[in-house]
Amino acid sequence: MTPTDHELLAHAVAAAREGRAEGGIPIGAALVVDGEVLAVGHNRRVQLGSPILHGETDCLANAGRLPASVYARATMVTTLSPCDMCTGAILLYGIPRVVIGENRTFYGGEDYLRSRGVEVVVLDDAECVRLMTEFIAAEPELWNEDIGEE
Amino acid sequence: MTPTDHELLAHAVAAAREGRAEGGIPIGAALVVDGEVLAVGHNRRVQLGSPILHGETDCLANAGRLPASVYARATMVTTLSPCDMCTGAILLYGIPRVVIGENRTFYGGEDYLRSRGVEVVVLDDAECVRLMTEFIAAEPELWNEDIGEE
Repeated sequence: MTPTDHELLAHAVAAAREGRAEGGIPIGAALVVDGEVLAVGHNRRVQLGSPILHGETDCLANAGRLPASVYARATMVTTLSPCDMCTGAILLYGIPRVVIGENRTFYGGEDYLRSRGVEVVVLDDAECVRLMTEFIAAEPELWNEDIGEE
Repeated sequence: MTPTDHELLAHAVAAAREGRAEGGIPIGAALVVDGEVLAVGHNRRVQLGSPILHGETDCLANAGRLPASVYARATMVTTLSPCDMCTGAILLYGIPRVVIGENRTFYGGEDYLRSRGVEVVVLDDAECVRLMTEFIAAEPELWNEDIGEE
């Protein structure tokens, strides 16, 4: 049976929790193709000192080099509304569908994705909101750094 | 003396050549702050098997974690018009100025950058055009993979 979006989100949430357990920022992602999870990833700013490893980009890196025909059948599942960089990565590779856990704690490039023809689904998941709310309260400076704000 | 944009571009071109010498895609970038080159980078899709290490993102990764106040004074210098992902990375970190070697062989997110308030300068540099023209002729499939096309 094809997994539901909520079932797919569970993989991204697990990746986000793993990131937090490592002392990092709790945002995770999963790249899903034909109902199968091809790769997961999570924000690794803290763990690897990298400003480009957000949940979605880490996931794309973990998936490795793929032909356009695979991205064209993919869904990017992410716990949080994608930032401009991750929005751009989704557009670069022509990923046609994005499933977002929540957009209450951060509202990213959803409108731009839609304007470029990407299907965007927001699940408004309570556990995703809780993960980010607790993290932002605990480490506001780290969070601001991750989204390019003072 | 403050270096000119053409002088800054030379750092990105050197990085692009280094990438080609490694068997990779000849696109390079430099992050410049207050006239000083803070970091350089080049596309490492081939070298590291990574779909997220374009010239600009590799450069940002090499620069490491920076406060927003540094990005706010930065110029991203790149040999080629930035793709959607690199456009998004520039926007995420609020980099206010982008210097582009050329946009003849690929036209990226320049209009979107401008619409978001970023200053974009295109130098139309013959050496940058030559590097990409020769590369695309030699390895068209690799190039298409890098820009998410068949």
